Order: sequence, then C-alpha cells, then structure tokens
Amino acid sequence: MLFQKNDTVLFIGDSISDYERKRPVGEGLRNAWGTSYVACAGALLGSVYPELALRVINMGVSGNQTRDLIARWQTDVMDLHPDWVCMLIGINDVWRQFDQPQMPETHVLPDEYARNYESLIQRTLPHVKGMVLMTPYFMEPNQSDPMRARMDEYGAIIRDLAAKYRLPCIDLQAAWDGLFQHMHPCNIAWDRVHPNQTGCMFIARQLLNGVGFDWNHCAE
Amino acid sequence: MLFQKNDTVLFIGDSISDYERKRPVGEGLRNAWGTSYVACAGALLGSVYPELALRVINMGVSGNQTRDLIARWQTDVMDLHPDWVCMLIGINDVWRQFDQPQMPETHVLPDEYARNYESLIQRTLPHVKGMVLMTPYFMEPNQSDPMRARMDEYGAIIRDLAAKYRLPCIDLQAAWDGLFQHMHPCNIAWDRVHPNQTGCMFIARQLLNGVGFDWNHCAE
Amino acid sequence: MLFQKNDTVLFIGDSISDYERKRPVGEGLRNAWGTSYVACAGALLGSVYPELALRVINMGVSGNQTRDLIARWQTDVMDLHPDWVCMLIGINDVWRQFDQPQMPETHVLPDEYARNYESLIQRTLPHVKGMVLMTPYFMEPNQSDPMRARMDEYGAIIRDLAAKYRLPCIDLQAAWDGLFQHMHPCNIAWDRVHPNQTGCMFIARQLLNGVGFDWNHCAE
Amino acid sequence: MLFQKNDTVLFIGDSISDYERKRPVGEGLRNAWGTSYVACAGALLGSVYPELALRVINMGVSGNQTRDLIARWQTDVMDLHPDWVCMLIGINDVWRQFDQPQMPETHVLPDEYARNYESLIQRTLPHVKGMVLMTPYFMEPNQSDPMRARMDEYGAIIRDLAAKYRLPCIDLQAAWDGLFQHMHPCNIAWDRVHPNQTGCMFIARQLLNGVGFDWNHCAE
Amino acid sequence: MLFQKNDTVLFIGDSISDYERKRPVGEGLRNAWGTSYVACAGALLGSVYPELALRVINMGVSGNQTRDLIARWQTDVMDLHPDWVCMLIGINDVWRQFDQPQMPETHVLPDEYARNYESLIQRTLPHVKGMVLMTPYFMEPNQSDPMRARMDEYGAIIRDLAAKYRLPCIDLQAAWDGLFQHMHPCNIAWDRVHPNQTGCMFIARQLLNGVGFDWNHCAE
Amino acid sequence: MLFQKNDTVLFIGDSISDYERKRPVGEGLRNAWGTSYVACAGALLGSVYPELALRVINMGVSGNQTRDLIARWQTDVMDLHPDWVCMLIGINDVWRQFDQPQMPETHVLPDEYARNYESLIQRTLPHVKGMVLMTPYFMEPNQSDPMRARMDEYGAIIRDLAAKYRLPCIDLQAAWDGLFQHMHPCNIAWDRVHPNQTGCMFIARQLLNGVGFDWNHCAE
Amino acid sequence: MLFQKNDTVLFIGDSISDYERKRPVGEGLRNAWGTSYVACAGALLGSVYPELALRVINMGVSGNQTRDLIARWQTDVMDLHPDWVCMLIGINDVWRQFDQPQMPETHVLPDEYARNYESLIQRTLPHVKGMVLMTPYFMEPNQSDPMRARMDEYGAIIRDLAAKYRLPCIDLQAAWDGLFQHMHPCNIAWDRVHPNQTGCMFIARQLLNGVGFDWNHCAE
Amino acid sequence: MLFQKNDTVLFIGDSISDYERKRPVGEGLRNAWGTSYVACAGALLGSVYPELALRVINMGVSGNQTRDLIARWQTDVMDLHPDWVCMLIGINDVWRQFDQPQMPETHVLPDEYARNYESLIQRTLPHVKGMVLMTPYFMEPNQSDPMRARMDEYGAIIRDLAAKYRLPCIDLQAAWDGLFQHMHPCNIAWDRVHPNQTGCMFIARQLLNGVGFDWNHCAE
Repeated sequence: MLFQKNDTVLFIGDSISDYERKRPVGEGLRNAWGTSYVACAGALLGSVYPELALRVINMGVSGNQTRDLIARWQTDVMDLHPDWVCMLIGINDVWRQFDQPQMPETHVLPDEYARNYESLIQRTLPHVKGMVLMTPYFMEPNQSDPMRARMDEYGAIIRDLAAKYRLPCIDLQAAWDGLFQHMHPCNIAWDRVHPNQTGCMFIARQLLNGVGFDWNHCAE
Repeated sequence: MLFQKNDTVLFIGDSISDYERKRPVGEGLRNAWGTSYVACAGALLGSVYPELALRVINMGVSGNQTRDLIARWQTDVMDLHPDWVCMLIGINDVWRQFDQPQMPETHVLPDEYARNYESLIQRTLPHVKGMVLMTPYFMEPNQSDPMRARMDEYGAIIRDLAAKYRLPCIDLQAAWDGLFQHMHPCNIAWDRVHPNQTGCMFIARQLLNGVGFDWNHCAE
Repeated sequence: MLFQKNDTVLFIGDSISDYERKRPVGEGLRNAWGTSYVACAGALLGSVYPELALRVINMGVSGNQTRDLIARWQTDVMDLHPDWVCMLIGINDVWRQFDQPQMPETHVLPDEYARNYESLIQRTLPHVKGMVLMTPYFMEPNQSDPMRARMDEYGAIIRDLAAKYRLPCIDLQAAWDGLFQHMHPCNIAWDRVHPNQTGCMFIARQLLNGVGFDWNHCAE
Repeated sequence: MLFQKNDTVLFIGDSISDYERKRPVGEGLRNAWGTSYVACAGALLGSVYPELALRVINMGVSGNQTRDLIARWQTDVMDLHPDWVCMLIGINDVWRQFDQPQMPETHVLPDEYARNYESLIQRTLPHVKGMVLMTPYFMEPNQSDPMRARMDEYGAIIRDLAAKYRLPCIDLQAAWDGLFQHMHPCNIAWDRVHPNQTGCMFIARQLLNGVGFDWNHCAE
Repeated sequence: MLFQKNDTVLFIGDSISDYERKRPVGEGLRNAWGTSYVACAGALLGSVYPELALRVINMGVSGNQTRDLIARWQTDVMDLHPDWVCMLIGINDVWRQFDQPQMPETHVLPDEYARNYESLIQRTLPHVKGMVLMTPYFMEPNQSDPMRARMDEYGAIIRDLAAKYRLPCIDLQAAWDGLFQHMHPCNIAWDRVHPNQTGCMFIARQLLNGVGFDWNHCAE
Repeated sequence: MLFQKNDTVLFIGDSISDYERKRPVGEGLRNAWGTSYVACAGALLGSVYPELALRVINMGVSGNQTRDLIARWQTDVMDLHPDWVCMLIGINDVWRQFDQPQMPETHVLPDEYARNYESLIQRTLPHVKGMVLMTPYFMEPNQSDPMRARMDEYGAIIRDLAAKYRLPCIDLQAAWDGLFQHMHPCNIAWDRVHPNQTGCMFIARQLLNGVGFDWNHCAE
Repeated sequence: MLFQKNDTVLFIGDSISDYERKRPVGEGLRNAWGTSYVACAGALLGSVYPELALRVINMGVSGNQTRDLIARWQTDVMDLHPDWVCMLIGINDVWRQFDQPQMPETHVLPDEYARNYESLIQRTLPHVKGMVLMTPYFMEPNQSDPMRARMDEYGAIIRDLAAKYRLPCIDLQAAWDGLFQHMHPCNIAWDRVHPNQTGCMFIARQLLNGVGFDWNHCAE
Repeated sequence: MLFQKNDTVLFIGDSISDYERKRPVGEGLRNAWGTSYVACAGALLGSVYPELALRVINMGVSGNQTRDLIARWQTDVMDLHPDWVCMLIGINDVWRQFDQPQMPETHVLPDEYARNYESLIQRTLPHVKGMVLMTPYFMEPNQSDPMRARMDEYGAIIRDLAAKYRLPCIDLQAAWDGLFQHMHPCNIAWDRVHPNQTGCMFIARQLLNGVGFDWNHCAE
C-alpha cells in the first residue's frame, strides 16, 4: 500500500467528505471524522493495518467548490503537514450551474475548475509524498443528462491532471456506473450526490483499491 | 370553474401534499395547509375568488401509499364531507421499489395500485360533486430511467381511471416534462420528487388550469 | 411583462416582505425567500415564465422603517445590482405612532417619510431598469380610523412619487378595500398588517398585475 | 367589597383569562395564575386586602367558547367549590364567524350563546354566593365594523342576563371605548383582543370597581 | 400626582426590578418591562392615567449592587433622558455579606453604599424633575436577625439621603413589616427577597402611593 | 455502625432527598442518587466502608408530605425490601400552612402528621432491621418565627415517636441551630429549606453520626 | 459466502449493535442501522455484493442481557423471518456483576447465560438458514482481571454452543487480543466495551471473515 | 489541620476537578464547584469546620495537561491569591499517548511533565502558605498494563517533587489500589479515570486525610 508507517493522510473536499466532521480539524478522539466515506476509509485503515498507526484527517467542508479550497488551503491542508492528500472536489462547481442557474457568480466553469485544481496540485506536490485524485460524480446513469454530461467534462479534467502529474486517480463516476448495473441510484442517494452508508463504504473501497490496500492483510 | 360557492375542496395524498400541514385536520387558522402546492392552490382560490368562500382542507400524509389512503379514507376523507376530492398519490407506491428494493412488502405493484385507486373512486363518487385526479410523477426527463418508466405505467393507470369515470385528470408528469425544457430538474427538487416553492406553485397552476380556474377573474 | 430574460428583481421592505427570508441575502437554494408575498411572486414568476430565468431576491427586514432602508441601501440593494427594485415600506413608519405613542423618536412623520422615500428613488433610478412602488396599508376598512387615515396620507405620498418619477404604483390599500367587500379583515390578518397565505398571494397578484404579468402565459 | 374573608373567587373564560396559567388548576405556588388580568386582580386582592386571605383560581382556557365551558363546567368550576364565579366568555363565539367564515360548525350564534350562557348561570347560582359577568369585547371603536356590531349583540345578551339574575355586570366593551378616547387600540393589542400588561390591568380594574373594591383600603 | 403628561419615568435597580425585562432597554412593544413591580407600576400608570401618556422604562439588572449602577449609569440612565428616576438598590450590597461571607470583595459596606448612592443622586438631580428612593428590604420580620439588622442600617441611609435632598422616600421595609402582620413572608417570597405577583403589586402600590397616585382617578 | 455487610439502606422523603434522583428507583449506574444529602451519605458509606458493599436507594420525591408517603409506601419502600429505612419528611406538611394559607386542604396538621408517621413506622418495623428518623427543620434560628415554632412541634412528634419505638433520631433542627452560630442561614439555603452542597454534606454527617459511622474506619 | 441472493440477515444484541439504530425495526431508508458494527457490515455487504440484494436488519437494544432477548425474541427476531441471525450478547450479563455488585438481581450468572442462550438457538434454528455466534468480550488484555476472566467463561460457553450446534463462531475476544498487540485498548474504547469507528469496523471485519466474505469480490 | 481561618484553598487540575464547575471562576453562590471531588472537599471543609470560613475555589478545566496549566496559571491561580494550591494534573499528559498515539504533539512525555510541574511549584511557592500535590492515576490495578506503568512513572515524579519541596503528597494511585481490593474499578469509573460520586468522595477523603482534617472535629 502507498501509505506507510506513521504517515498522515489528509482528506479534503466538500460535503461528501464532511458529514459533520469535527471543527476546526477533523481529527481526534471520538467521531472526529464524521460519518462520510472518510470515516469508512479511516476505520478500514486503522483496523486492517493497525501496525502502521496512520493518522487520518478529514478536512471536508459542505458546499465547497475549488475556489473555497484555494482560500483555505494553507490553514486547512499545508499547515497540517500531511504526507498524502486525497481530493474529492468539483461536484458543487457543477451543481450550482443546474440548481441555481440564475446565479452565475456561483458557477465554476471548466476552465476555472482546471486552473484552480492544478494550482492546488502544484502548491502541494513539493511538500507531500503524494496526492490521490478522485473524479467528481453525479449518480445519474443517463450520460445525456445535461448535468451528468457536464460532470463528465470535469471528470476528464481530473483524469488529465492525474496523468500529467502521474498521480493515482480514482474514477468514482465510472465506479458508480458499475454499481448502478445492480440497483437504481435512489437506493444510494435521493439527491444523486450524498451517499448513504452503503454508498460511503463504496467510495472508501474505490479509494483504498486505488492506493494498493490489501483487504486480506494481516498484522503480525 | 368547477368549484362553487361554499364548496369544500379536500386534497388527499402523500408528502407532496403534506409539507407540515396541521394535524389532525389540515384546516383552520394560520398555516394549517402547510407549505405545499395545496397551500398555493388554497391561497389562489381564496384570493382570486373570495366571493366563493371555498373551504380548502389538506389531508396529505408524508410517506403514504394507496394502501395508507384506504386505511384512513373514512376518517380523513368521507367524515369531512368534501364536495370535491383532489388526489395525488402513487409516488411512494413506486419509489419504494427503487430506494429499498430489498423490502418487497413495501412495494405497491401496478395491479394493486390500480385496484386500490379504483376502490377509492368508487367509494367516494356517490358522495361528492366530483374528484380531480393527478398523475404521480418522477422529475426525471429520461423516459428510459427505470423508475421514470415505472412511474409512467402508474400515470397511465390514472389516465385510464379518469377516462373510465369521466373525471378531470391533471397529467403532472407531462407538465414537468414541459417545464424541464427550460431548466434542469435539480432547479426544482434535489430528490426529483419534493418541489421547492416554484415547483409547488407549478403543480397548483396545473391543477387550477384543470378545474377551469380563471386567472383574470375579478370578484365584483 | 416589464421583467425580461435574466433580469434581477429585488424586493425591499419590512416584515411584510421578510417572513423569515434567508440571511444575509434572501436568495439561493431552498426557501431563501421565506414565506411572504415575495415567495409567492417569485414562485409565480419562476413557474409561469421559466424561460426568462428571472433572479428574485428578497431583502425585507422585519420592523424596518424608511430610515432603516437608507442605512442599509448600499449593501442590501445597490451592491446586489438589481434590474428592478420593488418597494413596500412605510407601515412601521406609521404603526409606531399608534402602538407606542410615548416613543416619538420611533415615529417617522409624513415629511420625513416622503424625504426618505424620494432619496431612495433618486439614489436608485440611474442604476436600474425600473422601480415598482407599493403603497403601505392598514387592513382597516374604516377610513376614519386614525391609523387608517394616517396610512392613507402615506399612500398618497407614494402615489405622488410614482407619478412624479413615472413609476408603476400598486395601490395595496385600495386592493384590500376591495377584498374586504367579501370578508372581514381578520380572515386575512389578526393584526390587520401581516397577511396569512391567502393574503400574501393577494399582494403578489396585485404586484404582478401591475407589471404586466400574463397569467395565461405559456412558455414555448 | 363583595368578596369576604376566606372566599374562593374563581375566574373562568378563554385566552383572555388563560395567559399560560398553571394546569390542571390555575392555583398554587408561583405564577399559577399566568399573566392575564386574573393575575392582576388576584395580586391586587392579595396585596390590598391581605386580611381577607382570598383564594383566587384561574380556570381560563385559550380558544374556549361557551360550548367548551359547558363541557368542562363540572370539573373545572363546580368541583372546585367557588364562592364567586367571574365569567368572561364569548369572544371566540363571535371571532370564528369572522376569521374562519368557511367553518360554520365553529360559529356559536347568538341564540346558542344566550342559551349556553344562561344554562351555566342556572347551574351555578344555587351553589355560590354570586357570579360576576363581563361582556365580551372587540377593541374596535368603530361600531359599524361587522365584528364589533356582532360583539355588541353578545354584550347585550350578557347585560340582559345580568339584569334578569341581578348579577353584577362589567361592561368591558364600554370601558374600552372610554380608554380609546386616549389612544389607538393597537397601543393595547395588535389583534384587538389580547391586551398587553396595561390592558390586563385595565380589565382587572374594571372588574374590581364592579365588585366594590376599595382602592384606598388599609388593612389594620 | 408627581408625574406629568409625557414624562419619562425610569426605574433602576437589581433583580427586584429586572424580572426578565427586555435588553438593552426595558421599553417598547410587548412585555418589555418584564414581570416585576415595574410592570405593575407601568400598567397601573398607563391604565389609570392614559391621558398622561407616560413613558415607563425598566433598567433593572439582576444581581446589581450600587457599584454596578455607577458603572452603567451614563448609558443606562442619563443617556435615556428620564424626567424621573425611581431607585431600588442595596439588597445585594447587603446579601453578599451573608450568603457568601468568604468573598469580602463582593460586600458593599455601609460607608461605600452611602457614598455610591449619594454620588448617583448628585450626578442625576440637576438633569431630572425628581428622583424617588425606595429602601432596600429583607422580608424578615425579626429585627434581630443579623441580615435584617444590617438591611435596616442601609434603609436608614436611604431615609437620610431622601431627607437631605428632599426626595420622596418609600420605606418598603416598613411596608413589608405591615403586610406580615397578616401572613408569613414565605407566602410572598421563599427567599425573602424576590416577591411573587402579589408582592410585586404590593411594592408598586407603595411606590404609587408615594408619588401621589390617585387610585380613583378618572380620565375624562 | 448499624449497617452491615450487604444491607440495603433506603432513604425516603421529599425534595430534600430527591434533588433529581433517578426514576422510578433512585439506584443504579451513574448519579442515580441525585445530588442531595442521600448522595453524600451513599458516597461516604461506599468510599469509607467499601467492604460492606451496602446498597443505597434514594426514593425521595419533591413536594411530598406524609400523605404522599402513605400512598406510595408499598411500591416505593416495602417492595424494595430494605434492611434500613431512613426518613426525612414533614417540611411540606408544615410549609404549605405558611406559603399557601388559603389552601387548607394542602395543610397536614400535627395530629394527622403524627398519625401518618406512626402508621408508616408500624407498617415497616416488622419487615426491617431498623428505621432512622430525622426531624423536619426550618433554617430559621428565630424560634418565635411562626413557621419555625410550628416546625418545632413536628420535630417533637418525631422525637416522641423515636423514643416510643426506640429508633435512632437525628435532630436536624438542633444541628442547624448549632451551625448557624457560625453563619447566616442564607449561606446554606436562600429559602431556608433546600441546602447547598455544604448543607447536604452537613445533613449526611448528622445522619451518619447517628448510626455509628466511624469516620476513621479503615477497610482492611 | 454464506449469505445468498435476497437473504435477510438479522443482527441481534445489546448496545454494541444498537448505536442509535431506528425504532421499532432497524431497517429502511437512511441510517436505520445506526452507526455500530452492524452498519459497517451492512454497508460492506451492500457495496461489495450489490447483486445479492441482501436485507440487513439491526435489532440491537442498549443494555440488553440474554434475559431481555428472550422477552422480545418473538417480535424482534422470529416475526421478521430472517434467513440468518447474528448474535452478540452477554457483555451486560457479565458487566453488571462488576459495575453494580450490590444489585444481584441484575447479574446473569454463567448457568443462566448458557441456558438462555441455548434456548434462543433451539427456538430459532428450525426456522432459519443459519445463525452466527459472536463471543462477548472485554477489551482488557490482562486475562487475570476478574471481569476479563469472567467474560472468558462466557466466551467459552458460546464456543461450546457453536460447536454443539455446528454454527460459525466469531471469537471477538481473541480478535481484540490480537489487535491490542498494536495499540492500547483505550485507543478503541475508553470503557473497554463500546468501540469507536475503527473498532466497529474491526468487529464487522471479523464477522464477515467468519461467513466467507470475499473482500476482493467483483460484481459482474 | 493545615488550613486556617479565612484561608483561600484553590484546586487546580483537569476534568477530574472540573465536573461542570462555574466559569470563569469556580466559586460563588450555588453549585459553583461543580460535582467533582472538589465539591466534596469544599462541602466537608465548610460543614465540619464552619468557624474557619474557608474559601474554596475550583479552577479545574477538562482535558488539561500541564502545558495548559502553564498557559493559564497567572489568571487562574496567581491572580486569585490563594493561600493553598491543591494540584491534580497529569492524567491527560499520559492518556493521550495511549488513546491517540498517532498525534505525538499531544503527548506530554515524562521529562516535559517534570519540567512543567516543577516550574509551577517554583512560580507559586513564594506566594502561598503551601501546596498539596496529588499523584495522577489510572484505575487499572494491573501494574503491567502499559498505561498504568506509564502513569506510575508520572506518580513517581510527583512524589519526588513533593519530597524535594517538602510538600504534602497524596498518593491517589496507591489509594485506588487499596480500594480495588474490595471492588472492580468499573464500579467506580467505566473509563478508569472519571470517578462516580463514591469515587469523588474517596479522592476528597484522601486529600483531607493528607492535610490533617479531623473528621470528628466539633465547632464550638
């Protein structure tokens, strides 16, 4: 697995990460991770690889777009000195274009999204062991739905950035498409964005698969 | 307009009607209608046709399926002696098949739905001036989405029943399809079911158009 | 209709507009408009003219008088760059003279009211497509009631200002007088000021009639 | 004064008496009287005539009409063995005719009102030292207002009953008319029904004047 | 009566005045006076002398000692431009000596009390029509109780100051002694300090008697 | 000490014992004893005599009089099979005579008190190892205060009953008199009834002294 | 894996299972499973084996002992017709012996525990595909701690029963012992009983390992 | 006893002292001490030695380590001018090493602990009559438990410092070991740190024994 003994793994993102994590820092005694996929990932890392003593921090903030991450990156990411940064951001960059179309100042268009995202990578990479990128998603299997189509553009940006900087990339949108072969999206999320417990575990599993997590690992 | 002086118009249905209406009866002083499309319809009827002094009662209950209506029909509809009954029911009959597929006892399949619905019509018609039927809907424009496709089956059942009993039928699903020419569904409802204020007003307008409401009416 | 594609329509006023609208700005996802006539107007504009994609903002603040509007006009109106400003203010300018007569510093007398109001018009008109004025009102049909008589003075000031600046003027007081041919005011508001849902819809209808809203409009 | 040493004085009525009095019986340690005119009267009786050790009980219930009093008269009045019963009831008998005209089953018309009221007198008189009647009121000085005119009919019924049974009668409507020579009703009550602290004291004073209370009394 | 048309009468003191009065200023619409003797006095002044349109302000703060009044005198008294200032302060100056004897820094001894109190008089008199002083009290009839004895010292200071500056002085301690001829103090206050409704009315009556209030006054 | 290994010691009484003890039985994990003197006694017994493993149960109920104990004695005392019953009851039997003199049905006069109390002793003694009686008290050092004098009558009844049945009797009134040589009662209780933490410990100490508790005991 | 398509898997137990699961049945939309290991197991089953559409129900109740399970077994287990029953019960049977030693009626001793547990197995086995037993545990690595030693007796009972009835048995106590090679128990649970998120995941993993869950399973 | 008439005794520490003590200073009327061992000690000092009129202040803050005490020592200890300072600190210095091992910046290692603690002694001794030190503890009788072993190191530091500065030292760890001869630690604290009422009393007793408290003292 990518993560090594005593590494700090920081998760940054929006409400998908947040799920009532502790403020100001999503780390510490009792439920500081909230109940999102970050908690699932943290609990799996801690229970399967106890000997690594990994430090998992959740810094997701509900409603965030890439713009918000730029504003709080220094205090919320760099100052915490992570070894690894896992990013899941972009859903709100897209969503606002569709749920409040009259408010264009809240829309982060693809160009800005790519620019924002890349600036965060460049600012971070020199100081960490690595970054893990996740594509934003919309749990709409119909690829011709306008918001799904738009989200796919943003996903492509992430895949390109991951390739350019040789970073692990978790294609969550593709993963959901696979899952929805077996069920309707409303079995995971009424709003097609915020997963239930099964959906959170699903994201965590995609992420861990992408970092070489060995599910049958046995701590000696 | 169908409704006449001093008529009682009762709305029955699920959470789309409920929206925190007053218990046990959704009528009376101050916000007894809740904030759903029923409140919009009631307020429009009262402000545009004040001389009719219509009595509007909201008996929607969140989560209801046709089965639940049967169980409470006597106390919640018949005992209130309405002149008109407006029905919007069926979304939960379908939804449970997709958001909790493992619980088949919560699924109301088309046959049962048709049977339940028709029994309510037969039980009611002899005692009222008329009934107004609304098709259940799913704010998913993609007609090949499984839940949308299923909902269309239920809508067809309503249209058939309306034709059989010569009742006004408001095709809400068709109306939403028209609206979504101009916006994405998430501008109205994140879960594609529960409309925001604009969406509630939209339903109320479809309903009133279907009962001959004259928008330019002037009370002398 | 006066309002055109992508226009921003801002409502400014007192508790009649406020009704728990969102802070600091009454705009955005889910119930940001509160439940006043502004919400009715916004929902009607959005559901009948979806193709215009109008932006509706509610900036009412409970208890406000014209003095308060002056104090917050820059941040709460000008900085939001509206195309249209709809104003309903003055009830509290009058009311305090009658419900707390011992506190003269809270009374806004007619001269000051006219001065305050006109200054707002002059400050705004150069930057907007138009303004819509509504007369303050007291739901007291008896014109010799002292507070009603006083309110009529303030209404006359608004009508004069509307004429002077050639602005649409909605005479709400006159409209209520018409409605109360059919019911007692306490059927709309126990305190003769804050309307129930029917009354809010009634105000919205007066307003929309005054801006050329076509109730039978059909978005292609 | 009518009330004598160790007498029990029970107040019965609607929300004008209730004002959050203690349940099930409005008597006892600390604020059991609520904050209505009953509390004012009780506090004046206790502080000016401490040597009488009067027992004051508040049994008002918000929203009550004469019908409700009949239903609870045995438990809420007779079983408490009062020496004196002070009644203020009828406002809701009238109000519902105007604030919810569509719900005729909630209207208590004059005939029923007189019948209900007289039955309570007949049921009570044989068991008490006396009863004190107060007219229902509407704080509307305009006697041609329909609800005020209606309320005056009910007041006349009370005056007639008081005369017939030779009971003290406090004409609150007339008293308010006098007070409103000096202020607008909204200085006392926004809804023209529920008085503020000054208005509660005003009612208490009318009542006490009617039972021979000596304001300059000095307990030896 | 001392108070004249349009006078502002300000009450200043401790918890005996406070009783949840409104912040920052105990004046205005609906229950701003709290429920203490100030509310009783305000309601009596307003209902018996409506033609005077007196302005009554309650600025009591729970727990206050004379030291606290000095600190907030400018903002809480002088800046409000009262015509009359009614003071009831000193109970906490004494009480702390007995309920927390180990904390001498919270004790205001007689010398300081006299000095503090007189400085407030001198600071105020040039700017007002008059002041009304009330003696602090302890509802303990036993004059040899140490706290009662101490309180009597403070009462004497007030009587002396009232004489020196020729101000009306209400001897509340003496009044309570009279009342307790007829009942035990615990019928008024469990802690012998904070009166129930009857006790609040009793204080209000003493105060009004001291300013020439005519209980049989009739507004023409 | 009277109490022996594995004995159950039950405390019964009024609010002095209650202090938010757990319902329905004041025993069990975490703070089931509330915070009264019972908790002090239980904690002292448990920490000084751990080897006895005593079972301490608090069954006090706020506001109780001897009448109430009779009504709940079977379920709240006998059914719990105590080895020892410690009783502190009577304060409310007396207090109601003074704080609500108008309500004689709430007064438990000396004869009834003695009768009630003795019946409880007779009903209990055959089933327990012993009972411990505490005199009711009023923290008023002035023995000529009417309520103190009355309380002394009730204390004498307890002392007589204790002598008659040869039960340990803790004279709390006498103990308070001793304590108040050193401080004013308001340092312990504002209402002269409900002790603060120091006062609760004081009662517990009196009680334990009366049952032979050895403060210097050392568990081997 | 043991569980097959459309199987219902019911979890029964105490607070370790409960963690605020939904009442009366821990199944359905949104967080009905609470946040215990049951939620972890349910989410892993749903996300890794979506094609099985397993139905997972959580019926844990905080504080339960085997006695409580017997009382509610019919309604809470049998009536729900599970295919599989997973049991984790016994911690409270033991714990009460140590945290409230004075209350022997709350102690379930080994004999009764074995009897209770076996009766549940016999009652259930004829109606289900299988049962999965988990040993109760105490996160105390020191095997000579009295409560740990006692818990080991109970664990042995479970292992024996599992052998006798040929049921899968998850030895949680042994699993914790392994984990605590890498950390102190207080890193998982302050009270050595209720695990944090990492601990819940750890239990879920032991359980799933015991039923043949394939962590690398891929739904086609 | 060490403490003398009018002395101020200040308790400083972590959550063991805090238990919801009043902010900002744990002193004053009604429950300002919270419910920890400090309250027990204060109540015993006040009720057994009333003539000393000791002043007891609780300045414990939950979660504190020695680092935190250094930061707030001036305002929270020195500025309050105590005569005696009783310290119980160190549990969190150790605990964090075991319950969040991944966060080394929260661990206070033995060297720092000794340094921090000694600096507080040196800073304080010149200004007080004396200090009383208590060893930190872990209610784990097994001395080979890693956290217990670690805690013993910290206890030794305290004993050494007490010897060096000739201060009374209360060895709480040893005392608990004695108590747990008679019961399991979970009878006192589920988390082996925060004692129930019996445990708080136990600590208070150890402390008082260490300062020469005479349990049989009688105030003349």
